[in-house]
Amino acid sequence: MDDRLVHATAEMFAILGDPTRVRLLYTLLDDGEQRVGSLAAGIGVSESAVSHALRLLRTSKVVAARREGRAILYHLDDPHVRQLLEVTREHLVEESGVPRPDA
Amino acid sequence: MDDRLVHATAEMFAILGDPTRVRLLYTLLDDGEQRVGSLAAGIGVSESAVSHALRLLRTSKVVAARREGRAILYHLDDPHVRQLLEVTREHLVEESGVPRPDA
Repeated sequence: MDDRLVHATAEMFAILGDPTRVRLLYTLLDDGEQRVGSLAAGIGVSESAVSHALRLLRTSKVVAARREGRAILYHLDDPHVRQLLEVTREHLVEESGVPRPDA
Repeated sequence: MDDRLVHATAEMFAILGDPTRVRLLYTLLDDGEQRVGSLAAGIGVSESAVSHALRLLRTSKVVAARREGRAILYHLDDPHVRQLLEVTREHLVEESGVPRPDA
């Protein structure tokens, strides 16, 4: 596999490898597009921690943003990212025996 | 999302976030089940580096092994892992403009 692709892949996974960023991504997956404030309230961390996490996730093309009036709304970048998160959860629920969040 | 599941997910992604482990996983994805020796030769690192990477990947349920006679053969744990790797590559090829490995 192309060296740049290997490094881009490793870098993307490394950025995903953090509990706050994981919580944020599954909140966007399960509850849809949101502002920084509601994400922060939802996962119980400060808005500045959420902003920092979103900045990393946008740089690595995992999350995207759009403006609506004065609000900035964040969402998962594309269907690949949704699929990646869904399949990872399926895998870990099966492997670890942790109950599904909607069970 | 359940706290244990969040941590298991972050831990799995963190383990995937390394270029040698990424190379190893895509070799198993593209070329199928293999021994340590052929993996090491294929990606150009030492057998001990491959063994170390495989140990981490087995602990995190990404890779599995089976014995065939005196050989130990390594493969991706299940279809979820294959899907995870495929969708990640699709995403990054689209986002980064890096050519597909088979292009």
